[in-house]
Amino acid sequence: MSRITLTPRIRTSPFYEAAVAAGLSDVTIYNKMILPTSFGDLKAEYDRLINGVAIWDVGVERQVELVGPDADACAQYFCARDLSNMKEGQGKYVAMCDYEGHILNDPVLMKLSGGRYWFSLADHDMLLWCKAVVAEKGFDVRVYEPDVSPLAVQGPKAHDLIAELFGEHIRDLKFFWFLETELDGIPLVLSRSGWSKQGGFELFLQDGSRGTELWDKVMAAGAKYDIGPGAPNHVERVESGLLSWGGDNTPDSNPFEVGMGRYTDVDMDADFIGKRALKQVLVDGIERLFVGLIVETDDVDVWPLAERTPITLDGEQVGTLGAIVYSHRMGKTIGLAQIKREVVDAGVTVEVTRPGGTSPAEITTLPFL
Amino acid sequence: MSRITLTPRIRTSPFYEAAVAAGLSDVTIYNKMILPTSFGDLKAEYDRLINGVAIWDVGVERQVELVGPDADACAQYFCARDLSNMKEGQGKYVAMCDYEGHILNDPVLMKLSGGRYWFSLADHDMLLWCKAVVAEKGFDVRVYEPDVSPLAVQGPKAHDLIAELFGEHIRDLKFFWFLETELDGIPLVLSRSGWSKQGGFELFLQDGSRGTELWDKVMAAGAKYDIGPGAPNHVERVESGLLSWGGDNTPDSNPFEVGMGRYTDVDMDADFIGKRALKQVLVDGIERLFVGLIVETDDVDVWPLAERTPITLDGEQVGTLGAIVYSHRMGKTIGLAQIKREVVDAGVTVEVTRPGGTSPAEITTLPFL
Repeated sequence: MSRITLTPRIRTSPFYEAAVAAGLSDVTIYNKMILPTSFGDLKAEYDRLINGVAIWDVGVERQVELVGPDADACAQYFCARDLSNMKEGQGKYVAMCDYEGHILNDPVLMKLSGGRYWFSLADHDMLLWCKAVVAEKGFDVRVYEPDVSPLAVQGPKAHDLIAELFGEHIRDLKFFWFLETELDGIPLVLSRSGWSKQGGFELFLQDGSRGTELWDKVMAAGAKYDIGPGAPNHVERVESGLLSWGGDNTPDSNPFEVGMGRYTDVDMDADFIGKRALKQVLVDGIERLFVGLIVETDDVDVWPLAERTPITLDGEQVGTLGAIVYSHRMGKTIGLAQIKREVVDAGVTVEVTRPGGTSPAEITTLPFL
Repeated sequence: MSRITLTPRIRTSPFYEAAVAAGLSDVTIYNKMILPTSFGDLKAEYDRLINGVAIWDVGVERQVELVGPDADACAQYFCARDLSNMKEGQGKYVAMCDYEGHILNDPVLMKLSGGRYWFSLADHDMLLWCKAVVAEKGFDVRVYEPDVSPLAVQGPKAHDLIAELFGEHIRDLKFFWFLETELDGIPLVLSRSGWSKQGGFELFLQDGSRGTELWDKVMAAGAKYDIGPGAPNHVERVESGLLSWGGDNTPDSNPFEVGMGRYTDVDMDADFIGKRALKQVLVDGIERLFVGLIVETDDVDVWPLAERTPITLDGEQVGTLGAIVYSHRMGKTIGLAQIKREVVDAGVTVEVTRPGGTSPAEITTLPFL
């Protein structure tokens, strides 16, 4: 178990052919597209990210574009974060919530030239949500999925590589800021971002017919840095405490329960979807917190976690485990979990459920590293 | 290529453990859940469906429930089909469209007791769409995903098997009609439906903790009919001309372009999303038709079709191929396609794109069998 059956229902990214040619071995499905997860050597892929530079096909990170007279107001209505001081060329990590305040997505919102916005999305069909709200609310904006596919270049050597390709000025880009630019005529948005804490960029390709060309140019320039293929790294992202929306959290989580409280502005003047519910959450008290766990186990390979498992205290469920990995850098088994606030505050040892029993775990703040 | 990486982002159905125990070998992802596609013997799985009876884990077929004072009006607003004469206990195959008249999903809508409705859905997060429309439009309904997971029993011997389990009265159920019932205390909705043309039922389990129990009861009763595991069958569904929404069609297709014209009532009094756009389509003329192809090829195994490929006429693209299989029953290679109406009307031979060239294909009506 298990081979994956590919069908036209599941799209490929513009970088898929290049990824296959580079030895793609494992995939998952994300936003109804193929997301590479490994090229057959997880250790080399991790080392490359921590010490060198890696290229990732993250074309599954789809964009929803808003453009039109009401784009500012519409973007704000979708976001639980105050956008009033947002500048062109800036990105912000935002929570999109439903009317009950449950988080539907944790995209980076990018404000482009021409009054356009992109939601750069996690795994959920937010285009449906946005189209329905725009039409029924009567916003004067066009909402659609543009031909935009990110290619990530991540790792400590990414800055040198990207500076060679685009110029030294890219070193001045602040985190989550971006440039609308090109590479040898290939239109793209160059953003200082990416789903790791090792530094790097995302190249938002704006012409789906040129994916292999862009991949090859980055690989050629990266040869001197020993660049190689990789994918969003499960171990590094747990060490860094990066949320995998929809995996780490239960579907009824609010932003305060996934570590996004600091990006949630319930007291701003502007209205947004879920505002009333989130105000009430702060009145009633936040029930769960997103925390790290240091797990006592002898199983260095760690059991595979294909679904969330219970966290218990004295036999009673007090949370859910969303991810567990062995960190070679820490020499420890670590996990990400949502746990009841009073249990976190009490600082007690909990138990995580594993095949055949439980293991004790200590609660800690994020990130680990 | 390619192993699939399972994560908590991807859910399993209540029947997953039973499917694994039965020898599950291949899967795909559908509605962010694991959908079994094979148990390692495609020929036996096909034969069982055509001549015997098969059990399928189709828990990925998620329900969106509408319940509340405005449920009738709300259900109608989502559907391009006239629901005014719909009865409790009845299902209808409906197109859900966006405001431009593009089809977003082709569910079976079921009208249950207590004024409730279920949309029994293809692969798209329609819960997002429905929640946004309900909230912004101000319908007084609750919209949510209930704990409901279908298990299909398909094939010519399904009627005898289901009659043994539920009683002889089930033989009187009309196609797409259903009963709210139970099996030894397991709550479920028994529907005469399923994604094949071989006859059968779907058991909509209403308690996710009892999936293995239900599977085992069906398997035990089915032993005398030589029941075995299977999955929605790619060959049979092409022979039967059943639409795979999102695979067979391009994203900008209207219901008339996917063979759902007879279920699309643009002249009814009630309003529905996309009505104005679909009226205009009928004024302007339908551009493409959903048709069958008989393909001339010596490759009996047929090339794998992981994405839609072009259909051409004199070198110019006139359509897209969504599926291609070899039908042993027909002794022919057949496909499903969307092709420009004038090309269909002209009755000419087209060319389908395959690896390394093209093959001639004759256009035909659906179903093949």
